[in-house]
Amino acid sequence: MSYSALTHHFEQLHHLQHLGAICGWDQATMMPPGGNQARAEAMSALAVLSHQQLQDPKLEDWFAAAQQASLTPAQSVSLSEMQRQWRDATLLPSDLVGAFSLAGSRCEHAWRTLRPANDWAGFLPLFEDVLNLSRQVAAARADALGLSRYDSLLEQFEPGMRSATLDNVFSGLKQWLPDLINQVQHQQNGESVLLPQGPFAIEQQRALGLDVMTLLGFDFNHGRLDVSVHPFCGGVSEDVRLTTRYDEQDVAQALMGVIHETGHARYEQGLPAQWRKLPVGQARSMGVHESQSLFFEMQLARHPAFIIQLAPLLERHFGSQPAFAPDNLAKLYTRVKPGLIRVDADEVTYPAHIMLRYEIERDLIEGKLEARDVPERWDQLMQRYLGLSTQGNYKDGCMQDIHWTDGSFGYFPSYTLGAMYAAQQASAMQQQQGSLDQLIEQRLPSIFDWLQQNIWQHASLHDTDTLITQACGQPLNADAFKQHLLQRYLG
Amino acid sequence: MSYSALTHHFEQLHHLQHLGAICGWDQATMMPPGGNQARAEAMSALAVLSHQQLQDPKLEDWFAAAQQASLTPAQSVSLSEMQRQWRDATLLPSDLVGAFSLAGSRCEHAWRTLRPANDWAGFLPLFEDVLNLSRQVAAARADALGLSRYDSLLEQFEPGMRSATLDNVFSGLKQWLPDLINQVQHQQNGESVLLPQGPFAIEQQRALGLDVMTLLGFDFNHGRLDVSVHPFCGGVSEDVRLTTRYDEQDVAQALMGVIHETGHARYEQGLPAQWRKLPVGQARSMGVHESQSLFFEMQLARHPAFIIQLAPLLERHFGSQPAFAPDNLAKLYTRVKPGLIRVDADEVTYPAHIMLRYEIERDLIEGKLEARDVPERWDQLMQRYLGLSTQGNYKDGCMQDIHWTDGSFGYFPSYTLGAMYAAQQASAMQQQQGSLDQLIEQRLPSIFDWLQQNIWQHASLHDTDTLITQACGQPLNADAFKQHLLQRYLG
Repeated sequence: MSYSALTHHFEQLHHLQHLGAICGWDQATMMPPGGNQARAEAMSALAVLSHQQLQDPKLEDWFAAAQQASLTPAQSVSLSEMQRQWRDATLLPSDLVGAFSLAGSRCEHAWRTLRPANDWAGFLPLFEDVLNLSRQVAAARADALGLSRYDSLLEQFEPGMRSATLDNVFSGLKQWLPDLINQVQHQQNGESVLLPQGPFAIEQQRALGLDVMTLLGFDFNHGRLDVSVHPFCGGVSEDVRLTTRYDEQDVAQALMGVIHETGHARYEQGLPAQWRKLPVGQARSMGVHESQSLFFEMQLARHPAFIIQLAPLLERHFGSQPAFAPDNLAKLYTRVKPGLIRVDADEVTYPAHIMLRYEIERDLIEGKLEARDVPERWDQLMQRYLGLSTQGNYKDGCMQDIHWTDGSFGYFPSYTLGAMYAAQQASAMQQQQGSLDQLIEQRLPSIFDWLQQNIWQHASLHDTDTLITQACGQPLNADAFKQHLLQRYLG
Repeated sequence: MSYSALTHHFEQLHHLQHLGAICGWDQATMMPPGGNQARAEAMSALAVLSHQQLQDPKLEDWFAAAQQASLTPAQSVSLSEMQRQWRDATLLPSDLVGAFSLAGSRCEHAWRTLRPANDWAGFLPLFEDVLNLSRQVAAARADALGLSRYDSLLEQFEPGMRSATLDNVFSGLKQWLPDLINQVQHQQNGESVLLPQGPFAIEQQRALGLDVMTLLGFDFNHGRLDVSVHPFCGGVSEDVRLTTRYDEQDVAQALMGVIHETGHARYEQGLPAQWRKLPVGQARSMGVHESQSLFFEMQLARHPAFIIQLAPLLERHFGSQPAFAPDNLAKLYTRVKPGLIRVDADEVTYPAHIMLRYEIERDLIEGKLEARDVPERWDQLMQRYLGLSTQGNYKDGCMQDIHWTDGSFGYFPSYTLGAMYAAQQASAMQQQQGSLDQLIEQRLPSIFDWLQQNIWQHASLHDTDTLITQACGQPLNADAFKQHLLQRYLG
């Protein structure tokens, strides 16, 4: 009885989230600018209402009773995932929730103009407010969960992940990555690469995107492709809304973006139908989500065998040109060059951007670093990892990302965890089914079947360690990622 | 205190309705088919939640206290509009609400296949269920509101309107309309009219629609135009979502459809900003809403002076052809021909379709007619009003409309009330500002200013009689409509 009451309650909550997800997509893709104020108010009312529903006093009694009930193993996991959501919603005092959300919106809003103006002095007091409140959130979560402060934030995005584990995998990475970057750059120095010559009409780029999504098995009966300034994968698993942006001079940006988001989308579309309305039916974590997008974008789309299939699609939509030769595209899509901007980084230098942010945000939350000292630390670490300086260049340095402006501390590690999980999955898949070369060339759908069987269908029915261990034979491990980079870039 | 608590409560409800309106628009315009099941569940959960919020037991106490408080006149009206919504939501037992809604969805769903199959026998039992429950709804509303049964349903769409008033205006109409139709047909018999030659590319039709919306003052910062199978005007007043459908062979269908919906849209966009989140800030009634769409589509768009401005737009998008000559277009857009289908009817025969439906639905609800006898009565009235038979032709007879399938008895009169109100407004406007000819030719925006001043800005701050009397010098009256038809079609 209490389990089914809980199920009904969380399903209702899911329906509200469905409406919020669609209206959020609409806001980014369809809404005329003048609709923003009313929409923001409606979305905020929905957030308050959802939060109220999670704080319904009946839930505590139902949880207590359900724990005494006889449940199937899957129902037990479902119950604890409901409890996790409920606990996350209830463990903070509501005035802190309000103040944190307000400071975050204020800082994020100001950041949109302060960043282009390179105005660190204007940004700092707003950022200090967000940091101060994030520390209070972390302290409250840490107390309630028995975790360190930073781990208590990490837990929101990567349940079960601890900074001790991150330190461990990142310390290996830190040792071999700078050398690898140097060697790859040295080796690529001699290569000549042709840049595709545009312009590439947007309507054709869109048609190419749809073709590639079809090749990647995207289900258009349960989703669609649109345009937004910041690409994302939204909607609900029955109706996945994927977006990209187009640059008429650069066909790779939208193409790789669409492939990346299609990875997210297929994970969502592959979640098990019978659990979709409950927390246990959601994607496991941000790291696992990112592992799917990076599997598609990095493991698959930059693989020479896949590029052989991509090249004719480019030619179909833009005619033939020497730069579309598969060999040339393969070189182009694996070009390594240290740069200041994370979102523009290649596969090899990307983890450096993440480790830097991880070290800084961990120290900020643990009280070992103050907001005003971030630019100096940023510059130091950029020099150390990538040999680049950001002194005085805040907008391409510590002010470049949106994450900290709204207090999303603990999110960044997901990107590199995703890259590692993706490499582990590719490695396991190859051990079980044969080389990616062969699979891509002969049985592309079998790659998606493997992901469906090993990742997508499990939603949140296992913790991440179990999910990854069952799929790949061992839990989180940087070896496969290292092997992948060595083979692709120095092989 | 209690007034502001009520205000807050109804604003929250408005925010939920905002999300529902956008997701409803999305469902009709953007959603892939596979998303329908999950969306239907989410929309239904929202409906239940909104209904619960209207049944919040606190409301009754707040209403009682607010009535003792000192309020401005506008606040008092706002209070009674909140009470009207609350009363409508609470006066029915919830098992009746559930059964009525279920029978309606079932009948409507079946109708979508039974109508094309002309299957009256299959439709009848479902329709009988809906009618039976509608009678129960009407009885419960009639008891609570002290109205006759049919009037209690009418009150949902046209607050303050009574069948006695309708009988009165319709009885005049019934006397002169058949003669008028005959005379107009006789006169038009000799005319030769050219049909525009297609195909008309959809992209160009859309561009034409946007041009015409611009000419009509639609605010694209607060709205947009898309495609749906059944055109509508949805969204919220800050973000009006208007749709149309395109037929490559017939440019008039989408063009007149867009103009019609733009009338609805400008009413929504013109509602007073300070009341938008409350019931008093909503459009006055369906009849007043329809008066705006019909003002745009009939009074304005089929006026020769407007057609002079329309013709160059048609030529800009489709090149020149003899049928685009303003004189020819004016004849084409005022062609009168009795037909079986209401939504295809011209301005002159349309009221006959409405009066027929009104008489039948009133008798059905009052228990003077049974569902099984509808086809026979339909045929009688079609013969009487339009000289056409629908014997055995259910799909183009009594099964043609969606309204009765989901129990929307009492809605149909709004269309002809709208036509009458629109004619009254056009007449008053001309008395105050000069002929429509001159206004359209020289000061088109002054027409919209008049509607803004006299209709849009008043939202639901007055009852319909007061609104129309203040704007037009007298309450509902068929004279202006009659004069308009005589002048346009026999003048």
